[in-house]
Amino acid sequence: MEIRVVRDVLEKNRRVAWKVRERCRRDRHSLLNLMSAPGSGKTSLLEKLIPLLVARGLRPAVIEGDVETTNDSERLAPLGIPVAHVCTGRLGGACHIPANVILAALDEFRPGEADCVIIENVGNLVCPAEVDTGADADLVMVSVTEGEDKPLKYPMAFRRAALALVSKADLAAAAGCDLGLLEANIRAVNPDLPVLRVSVRDGSGLEDLAGRVEALHRRALGA
Amino acid sequence: MEIRVVRDVLEKNRRVAWKVRERCRRDRHSLLNLMSAPGSGKTSLLEKLIPLLVARGLRPAVIEGDVETTNDSERLAPLGIPVAHVCTGRLGGACHIPANVILAALDEFRPGEADCVIIENVGNLVCPAEVDTGADADLVMVSVTEGEDKPLKYPMAFRRAALALVSKADLAAAAGCDLGLLEANIRAVNPDLPVLRVSVRDGSGLEDLAGRVEALHRRALGA
Repeated sequence: MEIRVVRDVLEKNRRVAWKVRERCRRDRHSLLNLMSAPGSGKTSLLEKLIPLLVARGLRPAVIEGDVETTNDSERLAPLGIPVAHVCTGRLGGACHIPANVILAALDEFRPGEADCVIIENVGNLVCPAEVDTGADADLVMVSVTEGEDKPLKYPMAFRRAALALVSKADLAAAAGCDLGLLEANIRAVNPDLPVLRVSVRDGSGLEDLAGRVEALHRRALGA
Repeated sequence: MEIRVVRDVLEKNRRVAWKVRERCRRDRHSLLNLMSAPGSGKTSLLEKLIPLLVARGLRPAVIEGDVETTNDSERLAPLGIPVAHVCTGRLGGACHIPANVILAALDEFRPGEADCVIIENVGNLVCPAEVDTGADADLVMVSVTEGEDKPLKYPMAFRRAALALVSKADLAAAAGCDLGLLEANIRAVNPDLPVLRVSVRDGSGLEDLAGRVEALHRRALGA
């Protein structure tokens, strides 16, 4: 009985996700969805990535998802880009951003002001991976401090992603993380998934990441 | 409409959670629920905590929740205690352990073989905090590598917990974590919540933790 209800909701969400995709094509912008556990460093990454995307001629915007607080949007404010904040706690304590909320968030942007919209999903490796936002591509991130087994234990996000990021790479030695094992576990779940090590602290991998995000953006626009 | 459905499911779960509590009292064991984000170190903590509880004369058992894999139960096997494993992915990709699954997991233990059952919930700071397992007390853990703001952004688990743990305390300096700020943010969400720093690597805080777990256990049994 409960499973039937969940299936209905997910099926309805899937239909709305396709409306999101149609709308993104009509408005000529890409939509990328960044997922990770809480504290893997999504907002810190965006603070560094956004200026690199701007330098490449893109006009990024961000949809920020948080259960509570607008802390993350406030952190992005100095970047001067459009940010739409979604407080999922007001949607009934939601642990992810469903497609209908993405539709509403896109209304917050003025027509044409952004050509690359990035969703920072709620910090959660389970539910966001089950609920299609309507994004053109998903990025999944895991930090070196979370343990090498996380891709095996939370495989869904890694299965659907177009790019995996290993964050806080500068902390690998201090955290005792075997980077080779972590990346082998990502490949065990999804052999075709490109994996990129990044560090917001020392800047490594960020320019490479900007290039890959630009490529995903161009692929979404068919350019 | 969808919100009404979610409320129905949560209301039904709440009734089952009280059945869990009645059963725990009948079978004369406590039930504690450990929650954190993925990779905060729940399993590593249990590997060190269980022997300390045994040394105090308790007979612990563990209900292990994972979306996929039985890795965590395999890690606990050398401890020689009863472990019941819940693969929530087979329940429809579930991001938490509902009370009816706890009831089923308790059936896996022989009558009287455990007096302190610990749930290692799915790594997720959102859904497990919304869905009552039927536990007598909740423990919430956050690692120093996740950022000081996590209690503010994921407050629900901290609001309902009886004890908060700050894990990987030995990594605080390397991760650039301001422990005072992290703990102030926990108190901002729940001023009465005791906070304990622990490190599985250097052992700090673990004996203190065992004492607090024993106290929660005794309180649940009314002893």
